[in-house]
Amino acid sequence: MANKGFTIWFTGLSGSGKTTLAKKIERELLTRGLGVEMLDGDVVRTNLSKGLGFSKEDRDTNIRRIGFVANLLARNGAVCICAAISPYKDIRDEVRHLHQDFVEIYTECSLDALTERDTKGLYKKALAGEITGFTGVDDPYEAPEDAEITVNTETESIDQSLDTIMAHLESKGLVPPAPQQDMSADEETAILAKLKTLNFV
Amino acid sequence: MANKGFTIWFTGLSGSGKTTLAKKIERELLTRGLGVEMLDGDVVRTNLSKGLGFSKEDRDTNIRRIGFVANLLARNGAVCICAAISPYKDIRDEVRHLHQDFVEIYTECSLDALTERDTKGLYKKALAGEITGFTGVDDPYEAPEDAEITVNTETESIDQSLDTIMAHLESKGLVPPAPQQDMSADEETAILAKLKTLNFV
Repeated sequence: MANKGFTIWFTGLSGSGKTTLAKKIERELLTRGLGVEMLDGDVVRTNLSKGLGFSKEDRDTNIRRIGFVANLLARNGAVCICAAISPYKDIRDEVRHLHQDFVEIYTECSLDALTERDTKGLYKKALAGEITGFTGVDDPYEAPEDAEITVNTETESIDQSLDTIMAHLESKGLVPPAPQQDMSADEETAILAKLKTLNFV
Repeated sequence: MANKGFTIWFTGLSGSGKTTLAKKIERELLTRGLGVEMLDGDVVRTNLSKGLGFSKEDRDTNIRRIGFVANLLARNGAVCICAAISPYKDIRDEVRHLHQDFVEIYTECSLDALTERDTKGLYKKALAGEITGFTGVDDPYEAPEDAEITVNTETESIDQSLDTIMAHLESKGLVPPAPQQDMSADEETAILAKLKTLNFV
């Protein structure tokens, strides 16, 4: 199978598991022999978005810029995995329409669960008004209505979400099936015997 | 020949022929079956550099950003052609060091010739002090000392410069040779006869 490029676009609130899942997917696709690039928060802030803030205009510019780069990569045969909050539906759709193959993944998680989890302590600060313009608290987040995949990171384990995503990508022919697991010597002998019976070997 | 990615980086003063040559090279590489992306002034301003100005810091950010994207493309098998003034040697070298294969092309042209040419009327304005911070007039341009290729667009025709560049890329094994020209029936007969004599056909 040729490496057909496409973009995987995670959207969801801060802490909802976008980057965690993106890294899992990246590793899985690499083991399947695909060329993969990840554009997540750190990479983007360092290399693409320096100087941008959190106004609607700057957020839109940031998302458009990530989408532009993702499409350049995808149309040259790479799989580009993007993980950005990307709160506005119209800009996500704009980015989608640049692409030939675009897989939007919504990491759904309730605000209660995120506040409970709060790995970076940001939700407490936002809810206390110590930081403002925080997506999902005092800044909008428009959940997708037509994402290719929705995973609920509140009720599912990471591996369940990963399985859902990989199954989708395989069913669409975007990634090859997982390499077969190593077989035991007995299993191999049994399969070989079966194939001989059927005149395949 | 597999499509091995690399970056072609044009540097030179405004009006020195970077984009003109970049477009010629792009077309030539496309006819040779390579995947090519061009990051020139318009593309970059629209998609990567919105909000950046012309201070040293902003110029550096711009060049680093183009270099980051070029390297993503190159390491995924595309040829990325960049055409930006990129006046500072240290930042060009920083971008070079990101890359596995990097071809810097200096489009050399004297200020006299550029002022004479002045297709956009910018040199006259800069020399009259109507615009400031203009590279080569009142803002620095550090010419490369170790570019892979230098073309002098003052003394050479565009086709001469193009030939120089393509010859270099071919000699380094970065692009396949040009498709053979159509032969006349007589030439074909003569070559076939010769090959038969030599027992090749």
